[in-house]
Amino acid sequence: MMIKITLPDGSVREYNDGISVIDVAKDISEGFARNVISAKFNGTIVETTTQLTTNGNLTLYTWKDNEGKTAFRHSTSHVLAQALEELYPGVKLSIGPAIDNGFYYDVDLGDDIISEKDFKRIETKMIEIARGKHEFKMRSVSKADALAKYKEEGNEYKTELIENLEDGTITFCDHSTFTDLCRGGHIPHTGIIKAVKIMSVAGAYWRGDENNKQLTRVYGTSFPKQKELTEYLSLLEEAKKRDHRKLGKELSLFTFSTRVGQGLPLWLPKGAALRDRLEQFLKKAQKKAGYEMVITPHIGQKELYVTSGHYAKYGEDSFQPIQTPAEGEEFLLKPMNCPHHCEIYNSEPWSYRDLPKRFAEFGTVYRYEQSGELHGLTRVRGFTQDDAHIFCTPDQLDTEFKNVIDLVLYVFGSLGFDNFTAQVSIRDLETPEKYIGDVVNWEKAENAIINAAKDKGLDYVIETGEAAFYGPKLDFMVKDALGRSWQLGTIQVDYNLPERFDLNYKGSDNEMHRPIMIHRAPFGSMERFIAILLEHTGGNFPLWLMPEQVIILSISEKYEKYAEKVLNLLENDEIRALCDNRNETIGKKIREAEMKKFPYIVIVGEQEEKDNTVSIRKHGGDDLGSMEIKKFSEIIQKEIDRTLQPFNV
Amino acid sequence: MMIKITLPDGSVREYNDGISVIDVAKDISEGFARNVISAKFNGTIVETTTQLTTNGNLTLYTWKDNEGKTAFRHSTSHVLAQALEELYPGVKLSIGPAIDNGFYYDVDLGDDIISEKDFKRIETKMIEIARGKHEFKMRSVSKADALAKYKEEGNEYKTELIENLEDGTITFCDHSTFTDLCRGGHIPHTGIIKAVKIMSVAGAYWRGDENNKQLTRVYGTSFPKQKELTEYLSLLEEAKKRDHRKLGKELSLFTFSTRVGQGLPLWLPKGAALRDRLEQFLKKAQKKAGYEMVITPHIGQKELYVTSGHYAKYGEDSFQPIQTPAEGEEFLLKPMNCPHHCEIYNSEPWSYRDLPKRFAEFGTVYRYEQSGELHGLTRVRGFTQDDAHIFCTPDQLDTEFKNVIDLVLYVFGSLGFDNFTAQVSIRDLETPEKYIGDVVNWEKAENAIINAAKDKGLDYVIETGEAAFYGPKLDFMVKDALGRSWQLGTIQVDYNLPERFDLNYKGSDNEMHRPIMIHRAPFGSMERFIAILLEHTGGNFPLWLMPEQVIILSISEKYEKYAEKVLNLLENDEIRALCDNRNETIGKKIREAEMKKFPYIVIVGEQEEKDNTVSIRKHGGDDLGSMEIKKFSEIIQKEIDRTLQPFNV
Repeated sequence: MMIKITLPDGSVREYNDGISVIDVAKDISEGFARNVISAKFNGTIVETTTQLTTNGNLTLYTWKDNEGKTAFRHSTSHVLAQALEELYPGVKLSIGPAIDNGFYYDVDLGDDIISEKDFKRIETKMIEIARGKHEFKMRSVSKADALAKYKEEGNEYKTELIENLEDGTITFCDHSTFTDLCRGGHIPHTGIIKAVKIMSVAGAYWRGDENNKQLTRVYGTSFPKQKELTEYLSLLEEAKKRDHRKLGKELSLFTFSTRVGQGLPLWLPKGAALRDRLEQFLKKAQKKAGYEMVITPHIGQKELYVTSGHYAKYGEDSFQPIQTPAEGEEFLLKPMNCPHHCEIYNSEPWSYRDLPKRFAEFGTVYRYEQSGELHGLTRVRGFTQDDAHIFCTPDQLDTEFKNVIDLVLYVFGSLGFDNFTAQVSIRDLETPEKYIGDVVNWEKAENAIINAAKDKGLDYVIETGEAAFYGPKLDFMVKDALGRSWQLGTIQVDYNLPERFDLNYKGSDNEMHRPIMIHRAPFGSMERFIAILLEHTGGNFPLWLMPEQVIILSISEKYEKYAEKVLNLLENDEIRALCDNRNETIGKKIREAEMKKFPYIVIVGEQEEKDNTVSIRKHGGDDLGSMEIKKFSEIIQKEIDRTLQPFNV
Repeated sequence: MMIKITLPDGSVREYNDGISVIDVAKDISEGFARNVISAKFNGTIVETTTQLTTNGNLTLYTWKDNEGKTAFRHSTSHVLAQALEELYPGVKLSIGPAIDNGFYYDVDLGDDIISEKDFKRIETKMIEIARGKHEFKMRSVSKADALAKYKEEGNEYKTELIENLEDGTITFCDHSTFTDLCRGGHIPHTGIIKAVKIMSVAGAYWRGDENNKQLTRVYGTSFPKQKELTEYLSLLEEAKKRDHRKLGKELSLFTFSTRVGQGLPLWLPKGAALRDRLEQFLKKAQKKAGYEMVITPHIGQKELYVTSGHYAKYGEDSFQPIQTPAEGEEFLLKPMNCPHHCEIYNSEPWSYRDLPKRFAEFGTVYRYEQSGELHGLTRVRGFTQDDAHIFCTPDQLDTEFKNVIDLVLYVFGSLGFDNFTAQVSIRDLETPEKYIGDVVNWEKAENAIINAAKDKGLDYVIETGEAAFYGPKLDFMVKDALGRSWQLGTIQVDYNLPERFDLNYKGSDNEMHRPIMIHRAPFGSMERFIAILLEHTGGNFPLWLMPEQVIILSISEKYEKYAEKVLNLLENDEIRALCDNRNETIGKKIREAEMKKFPYIVIVGEQEEKDNTVSIRKHGGDDLGSMEIKKFSEIIQKEIDRTLQPFNV
């Protein structure tokens, strides 16, 4: 019998049934097939050796795909398990999944322990096994046989897992002399695994239940090339150095207090100034783009969020309602600013001639997160959105959307995020019941977004079915200096809130119409954005944003007065500078200034005072020599002008 | 027997016992005695006819004193009661006290009603009585006699009042043919009352209990001169026009939404811009004065406020704790920013060399108020304090306090509040148990405040016993354009929070010491300040603060383009302007621009376009004639520079 295999590009190929995944790959291209390490058939991950017997959709994965990486890491966990069995006889395996950037295996070592000094010999054993190029082979086993194997071994974990499985669905995976209970999803053979690294060990309760036995969780990662592992490790090292929590402390930007509460950042003077500078920067651009700032309270009556639908979404799982001592009123900390902005819109009647109205607010919102989920500034319980809501007519949507993209691109450009892609999320036409709002308007909006993305030359993908129930959206994915992706900047079209808040404007036909709402936040939140910016730049912000741009070091106290004079002159040119006139060696002062990441270090001593000049050293060590103060001012201004251009509407 | 009478200036005079108050006054000065209308003897208000029989302290009051006004208005309420008895036979009186700016009497009119058209004849009757110059005479009556009088009249209200009084303490007051149950506190005779006005009538339940009968409350006011009444009435009229709630709406500054909640202002674009301008103004001055901005969350764990003592103060009566869905944490909306700033101080170790630290924040706080207490922006449930906390050594207190006064005076001056006094609140040395903190420090602080007030040439009074339990303070009382007093700007010394939060710094002696905290807020709150500023200026803010400084009116659409050109040129000079190019008559445009309080109205037509000039009209009608655009820019800049001088530290 012939079967029809449909590939992701829509092309259909016919084969005899029973053809293996890898043979389909070879039929497409021998070269491509060499890189295929996993596949998905009709929505299910399969082996490359799996034989296809029905018509279906086939996707082939290489290392470059996340699915390929998952198969690779999952397969490596089998190799780790085999290595542990050989090195720690009697070890009992439990589960060993792939995770982001690696895998782990939870094992019961009996009285044995694994510590960092053991990592090397585990890695060596794993590579030794990998080099055997053992094929991963799946086979079905009966529940009875499966239980028999692990009962014999005395492995209560696998026994428990199998007991919860249905007979007829149980599979084992063999490679080399090793066998494991496994659902599948492997690379062709162990030989592809060229580099492994045991990252850490930790305690982990069986099934995450602290009443159960604590097992040893061995974390590892693996790569198809040694070079990639080396790069990954140095990236990790760099990421550690750039951890925004560490930099935030070193640069005195923010702090947390257990008394105030977890996940509630306190912005220290330098951090608050940094945040203010970012806000002023965006405000200025927004003003040019016709936004108007508003200010709304941080609470609202519960009914407000029942009206908006946010109570249904956040109510149960977030900060609970605030009761009042009298009058029975109930308030909520606001999880979003939109209901407040809708009420501002509703405070006046509008005509089509007044639209678009663009209300912007740096609005602090509060959402409860479990303490275990909190992480520095990226996952907090209170954060300030650079929020705005545009209320416009359907005809204005196109232009407004493009203008928002321009603004977002301006923000990214000014802050050194040059590497980004966009994702357009639209309806799934097959499930129209999932979406509210007029079909004609949806089409208009989706087209507006796609056209805008095209028009602005964005590198975008369209994700069908990823739209919110209230409208389509465009999200920006930004790659940071370490190659990590962050979702930054979102633009969403909303047909829901205008309906719920009964928003209106009088059209040119003198009839009342519903405006469309656009939600947008180029930064997303000030907290998260600054965290990402810290990790992206390692604290070396663009010069215009630096809390302090220049430090002036006097070689000895004799030149203190001259240092102050230089400071004054720089401050007159609106350069943010300070003096270090401590009685320390110039070497120590320079080292400390480097550590604090001052972009420019000015050194003043006898020669400089005599010539009325300054000696300049850039952060990182570049020596710019000595020059007149005015000239130095100009260099700084030029550098600022290069990154911080005015926003042109 | 001789008695010793001590006067407020400390002087002691001897008289035969039985001398009347007014005779003491005459002994001091005949002229002065003519103005004495009430008195206090040993802490109790007495009549001017009261005979003194023991040693004691005597204070004499004229119309200028609040106590004098109270006696005057209370006496007028007797006259009102008499007038009502004559005009509405069978009326039953209940109570008739003096209140701020007047008095009322609650009466049971039976089936009668009083409406506005009756006011005139009541007033006429009152003046007719007053002209009789009837003396107010107090006399003691037995409870039985008192009850007998009102039982006979069938007055259940007075009867109820008397039943609750002790025999031997009951007094009546007679004047003319009228008698009332009364504790005393009258002016010498009715003839002093030259001007009366019935202000309004309202329903009022007997004893404020809605289960009781509703009486008619007749509100009135009175003055010793007709001119004063006229002035008062026109002031009321003006105050109505300047009501910030009315102006806030007319100028589109802020709004309220019942859905968001009562007492929670929503700042509209123009209001938000105004607020931002005020904040930037203060930020700039604060930066010069060495303050550092911080940002803290709007909630904190309940424990934080238990530590600070705010929970004990606000807890029960304010917004209730916010529960979380897990982990049993409890948070509170912050009623004050200080605990957060203490935690920021505590996030780093400090040496005496680092102090003072001055942490400033425009911090929004939330305090529950009963809905009946809410009033526009002056009484709200959420407001933003222009808060700062200075942490300093005892030695620095003096200088820091003076610097804060400078800053407050700068703020008042830049905003046109020229008429103010200061109140220094210190301990009552007789109740040392009421205060916490070291006595030596208290003395230092009180002296520092008094010296600072002296040194800065403030017009101040010292109020003993008015200090907070945690430290002495200085408050500014500002008189607005209508002569009303507002408390604006407070500076408080605090020994309490440094203790409760265990704040420390390392002294030059290498030992740990407690810093002193200064709380200060020149505006107080942005909401209240803007409300007062609106009522003070009637919306005609100082030019630098005006949301829009200039409106450009084109005489017809032919000059629209030239109007836009003028707009551009003004905007280049950072003047906030807009065009009114509507197809309306120039007369109508001018009238509307006047109503919207634009400080400058620019008119452009044929002549102006031809000459490249503008014709200028100031708000209020002053015609400045035509001039070059640049010249007009300069006029504006000069006006701004005159009121908004830079802050010099």
